Amino acid sequence: MQVSFRPEEIATIVQPKEVRGTTTEVVRGIASLSSAAPGELSFLGNPKYRGEVAGTRATVVLVPPDYEGQPQPNQLFLLVDNPSVALARLCSRIEQLLWPKPAPGIHPTACIAPGARVAASATVGPLCVVEAEAVVGERSHLQAQVYVGRAARIGDDCWLMPGVTLAAECVLKNRVRLQPGVIVGADGFGYEFIAGKHEKVPQVGNVVIEDDVEIGANSTLDRARFSRTVVGEGTKIDNLVQVAHNCTIGRHVILCAQVGISGSTTISDYAVLGGQAGIGGHITIGRGAKVGGQSAVTFNVDPGAYVNGSPAISYMLGQRLEVLHRRLPELFKRVEQLENLAADT
Amino acid sequence: MQVSFRPEEIATIVQPKEVRGTTTEVVRGIASLSSAAPGELSFLGNPKYRGEVAGTRATVVLVPPDYEGQPQPNQLFLLVDNPSVALARLCSRIEQLLWPKPAPGIHPTACIAPGARVAASATVGPLCVVEAEAVVGERSHLQAQVYVGRAARIGDDCWLMPGVTLAAECVLKNRVRLQPGVIVGADGFGYEFIAGKHEKVPQVGNVVIEDDVEIGANSTLDRARFSRTVVGEGTKIDNLVQVAHNCTIGRHVILCAQVGISGSTTISDYAVLGGQAGIGGHITIGRGAKVGGQSAVTFNVDPGAYVNGSPAISYMLGQRLEVLHRRLPELFKRVEQLENLAADT
Amino acid sequence: MQVSFRPEEIATIVQPKEVRGTTTEVVRGIASLSSAAPGELSFLGNPKYRGEVAGTRATVVLVPPDYEGQPQPNQLFLLVDNPSVALARLCSRIEQLLWPKPAPGIHPTACIAPGARVAASATVGPLCVVEAEAVVGERSHLQAQVYVGRAARIGDDCWLMPGVTLAAECVLKNRVRLQPGVIVGADGFGYEFIAGKHEKVPQVGNVVIEDDVEIGANSTLDRARFSRTVVGEGTKIDNLVQVAHNCTIGRHVILCAQVGISGSTTISDYAVLGGQAGIGGHITIGRGAKVGGQSAVTFNVDPGAYVNGSPAISYMLGQRLEVLHRRLPELFKRVEQLENLAADT
Repeated sequence: MQVSFRPEEIATIVQPKEVRGTTTEVVRGIASLSSAAPGELSFLGNPKYRGEVAGTRATVVLVPPDYEGQPQPNQLFLLVDNPSVALARLCSRIEQLLWPKPAPGIHPTACIAPGARVAASATVGPLCVVEAEAVVGERSHLQAQVYVGRAARIGDDCWLMPGVTLAAECVLKNRVRLQPGVIVGADGFGYEFIAGKHEKVPQVGNVVIEDDVEIGANSTLDRARFSRTVVGEGTKIDNLVQVAHNCTIGRHVILCAQVGISGSTTISDYAVLGGQAGIGGHITIGRGAKVGGQSAVTFNVDPGAYVNGSPAISYMLGQRLEVLHRRLPELFKRVEQLENLAADT
Repeated sequence: MQVSFRPEEIATIVQPKEVRGTTTEVVRGIASLSSAAPGELSFLGNPKYRGEVAGTRATVVLVPPDYEGQPQPNQLFLLVDNPSVALARLCSRIEQLLWPKPAPGIHPTACIAPGARVAASATVGPLCVVEAEAVVGERSHLQAQVYVGRAARIGDDCWLMPGVTLAAECVLKNRVRLQPGVIVGADGFGYEFIAGKHEKVPQVGNVVIEDDVEIGANSTLDRARFSRTVVGEGTKIDNLVQVAHNCTIGRHVILCAQVGISGSTTISDYAVLGGQAGIGGHITIGRGAKVGGQSAVTFNVDPGAYVNGSPAISYMLGQRLEVLHRRLPELFKRVEQLENLAADT
Repeated sequence: MQVSFRPEEIATIVQPKEVRGTTTEVVRGIASLSSAAPGELSFLGNPKYRGEVAGTRATVVLVPPDYEGQPQPNQLFLLVDNPSVALARLCSRIEQLLWPKPAPGIHPTACIAPGARVAASATVGPLCVVEAEAVVGERSHLQAQVYVGRAARIGDDCWLMPGVTLAAECVLKNRVRLQPGVIVGADGFGYEFIAGKHEKVPQVGNVVIEDDVEIGANSTLDRARFSRTVVGEGTKIDNLVQVAHNCTIGRHVILCAQVGISGSTTISDYAVLGGQAGIGGHITIGRGAKVGGQSAVTFNVDPGAYVNGSPAISYMLGQRLEVLHRRLPELFKRVEQLENLAADT
């Protein structure tokens, strides 16, 4: 990181209950206790690393109030109620410094079509395109080389990073964050097989992304055949994820990297899908259900269930079968012995 | 959708055999029978939903000629031979309204290198780049922020959506549709391991995409080491698919989302690969073969075969083994009982 | 390819020990022995194709010094020590012709923010964005529509192809080649679940890519929570690969297409991961280890080990279990026979 803090600035941010030691060093980085170098800050977030505090070379260390050790010379201990929370507070400050809220306005190289409406408080960066009838809400930020299609609507306080495509008619509500390369509103994959050819089924619906959703780099979400593909409030989607047409992703769902969801499927609120999981079409994953990484699910999953495997089965059964599967060599031997015994008698 | 139809406009498009009921409502959306609201159109495409027609709140309903029920007040039934086909006809009309054919011409912010040839009937949108010696054919549409490399050739009636990259020397024939973010012609992944390092093998071939191919968002197709990587006529590729160098994808093939195909492999005409399937290098998938989602195929597959699993085996055998696999706990118990019996005698 | 060579130009490049036959044809392509047409060059790289030389229609054929056959009329045999190496030399020459080193300079449509530093020998192509405090080193090439974020640093002789995003603060050392659509430095996927919501954990670290790394089209590498995500010297990454925050990818590693690596994992030097493999978080893959395609690894892998499967186990054990798995129908029958026997006695 290119920002630095004097020790007293850090104390102002994390508000320690007690300060031990002194240092005149400036802090220019954050690292784990064991890997930190002088000039870096570290923290005791997990009790199992308590023994590493004494040996750390970090200049500033965030420790819990019950930590009893003393700092080395030119080292500062800041005792805080929750070192992880204190660190998050510091990182938020760093984030503001690294990515300062840009000034409102439209970069002279952006192409805003006649009939588009961009709020005066919004920022449209270099080489963005905003098509006719599109709307960009208050304080929203199109960073650079973003494409906003005809009649697309972006709410307030959204952030579209470089190279994002928001296709025609699609909708982002408020505080939606799209990482670079995200594509919202490509055509759904729908064809009818007629006379030896796959004839395209027009895809005339859209995609609606509710409040506080974040979507990872190069992920793709397809527009509905008609009606809408929906991603619910607070859901977080990692990189290279595929959401097909007419899916309904619920609220506060987690989709890890490279997950693929087939068409017209519903992922209910609070479900968690592990990386590279594949979900079939026209099914429902229940509220709060968990799907293991690389699983393949082709049937409905009950609320709260935990399934795993390809094809997916209940996690507990899968674990048991996996153990027995690895004992197959033994089982074959046992059956052979029984056969030998039978032959002898 | 941002388009609307008066009931008489819909009748003009779908040409009903009979009309029942009347409405003065304007139709602004399409939805399933059970979810439609007033102001929306619905349809009875699948007989199993016949019972839902009576209760639907849709303003206009497309029903087959043998449907006997009567509409509610302010509701219109249009009796058509095939409601699905009638709906497709309506959606095509919506598509034309949503994505009107753009006017020909080159946007003033597009960069057309000297020596590139763009047909007068083509449209090159904002912030596109067309390099030297590239050709853009009649009525083709580069939507926005598209990159066309040196000496690339685009035929007639193609549509390259925002952010597409067509690298140097690559070829699109006619009516090819590339969804946003597609990359045609990145280098193949080829290295030779020499003296502890992976030395790059130059990739100097290209990619040729035949007529009527469609490729989904953020999919990647690599250029050949030499000669060409080919995608045959009428083939449809979903999002986030990887096609490696020197592959030959046949005609009318379906590659679902996140499929990965290794180098120099042939996928024959009419094959269908399910989502997230992985195909090894230097093999052939036979004509009309089916590969299940998330399967891993590392050997040739016969024409018309259906394989599934990781590693893939015949679908029927896989289903049988899966049933037996789940009976492993029972089998272990039975063997134990036999052993106990043997010990007793 | 759009380049052509006269036979004597090819001889100058490959330096044959002996020349047999003559031709006046110009060579405009390269193809395998069996598929080559007149006007193309072919080569005998693998002894098993020796029988195909006599029948090839190629105009020029590279053969080893011990090849005894004679060319057909208007056909040229060039006898070289190693036809594959000779071909690579020719392809390198083709590569230089296809992708000539561009002239230094900044395209008038590129947006270079005040405070960015671009070397005079660097090339910045059309519609690129280079933000404040960013550095572009000697002879580096930003091809087109590339985004370089605030304070990002690019070393010497790098090549960023169209549509690449290098986010703020991220670092490319020297001779790094990023294929189109690569995203370096999107936010890591980190949230804490607080009061029913996933609250974002700020991601304020960066990504550092060491010398001679190549990364494939549309791959994504996330910035660290704090500190750095690292890709070591000479590592080659294929298309659509996901590398999560805080990973350390070693030197000379191979990551095939669609691999996904979860957060804080270490892939040691010379490891090779097959296509679509998924690696869990906070683990270590040992030096030189091999992971089969589509495997799922959730535990440490020893140096030099070869694991495969989902979940992954040792390759040898996996092969054995797979054989026994397919014999399950037989095993069930054998147990039934034993049971019948036991019932009879």
